[in-house]
Amino acid sequence: MARWQPNAPERLVVAALDLFAERGYENTTVIDIAERAGLTKSTFFRHFPDKREVLFGGGGAMSGLLDEGIAAAPGTATPLEAVAHGLDSIGREVFVPARRAFTARRQAVIAANPELREREALKGLGLTARMADALRRRGVPGLTARVAAQLGALALTITYERWSDTANAEEFTDVARRALDEVRAAGASSVS
Amino acid sequence: MARWQPNAPERLVVAALDLFAERGYENTTVIDIAERAGLTKSTFFRHFPDKREVLFGGGGAMSGLLDEGIAAAPGTATPLEAVAHGLDSIGREVFVPARRAFTARRQAVIAANPELREREALKGLGLTARMADALRRRGVPGLTARVAAQLGALALTITYERWSDTANAEEFTDVARRALDEVRAAGASSVS
Repeated sequence: MARWQPNAPERLVVAALDLFAERGYENTTVIDIAERAGLTKSTFFRHFPDKREVLFGGGGAMSGLLDEGIAAAPGTATPLEAVAHGLDSIGREVFVPARRAFTARRQAVIAANPELREREALKGLGLTARMADALRRRGVPGLTARVAAQLGALALTITYERWSDTANAEEFTDVARRALDEVRAAGASSVS
Repeated sequence: MARWQPNAPERLVVAALDLFAERGYENTTVIDIAERAGLTKSTFFRHFPDKREVLFGGGGAMSGLLDEGIAAAPGTATPLEAVAHGLDSIGREVFVPARRAFTARRQAVIAANPELREREALKGLGLTARMADALRRRGVPGLTARVAAQLGALALTITYERWSDTANAEEFTDVARRALDEVRAAGASSVS
């Protein structure tokens, strides 16, 4: 009989990251991960469809938070300011200081594996599409929404890279605001 | 003994598209494609690593042409104008009028299959990275190059969608210039 395991997903993610760092992603099995976490293989599969998804399970929550943040931005906000509210929202809920070291380790595993890099890139495209949809629901015209979402996605990538450096003590939302300013300025100089 | 087959890659691509349209991508095998083209399975594998790559074989040529076009833009061109030269270059060499109907069929097959859509999306990310590299080689600062490449990639996607509509009689380069103008204007209104 399956028993309820407190924090099973978190324990599995931490165990997986430890093992990926120790012996490499390819050399780690789902059974290894479950054993390290003190759980069974079937508990693993109740939470994740496969080994790869251990690293990407948080994507759905992030999309929802971006949506909510963009929707809650003041009516006077420009499209890119609305995106900034979306980034604030994930900064408050997901990328809190206690998560920085975990994020840095996750990034190192992904950077070392082409299949994981592809997965990460596709998830990024999904987030970009979600941001564009959220902007359209605010009445932003289609193409402007796509452009603002692309610029927002680029700012998010830069923010994520900088914030997940454990030598960085800044808050996610501060890093995000500066990245958005830089992207906006780069947009202006790409046409002049 | 393998004999040289004139236009083998083109024949295989046309045969593949015919079969994908007739019976679906999943229900078509490499052997089916080779037979329809009047070629052998080993000829197929001399030109393509697998069934999926039949639809993506032209990606390398496109990257090279984008690079060359961006490098050959006048020294006074803004980053986004340099991208426009890159798009002109693929319009002259790849997306010629005779290729429009083929492109429309290829798009229909890709749109119907999630795995192919993922592949197309990843190839798009690869092209974006190539454009950013080509801009940096012109001395464009890193982040400006990334933004201009993102805007250029969005213009390319829009151009490709519009141009591959067989009801459209315009030249690729004209569609591309207008798309770039629209993306530029959308960029301005995403911050105001």
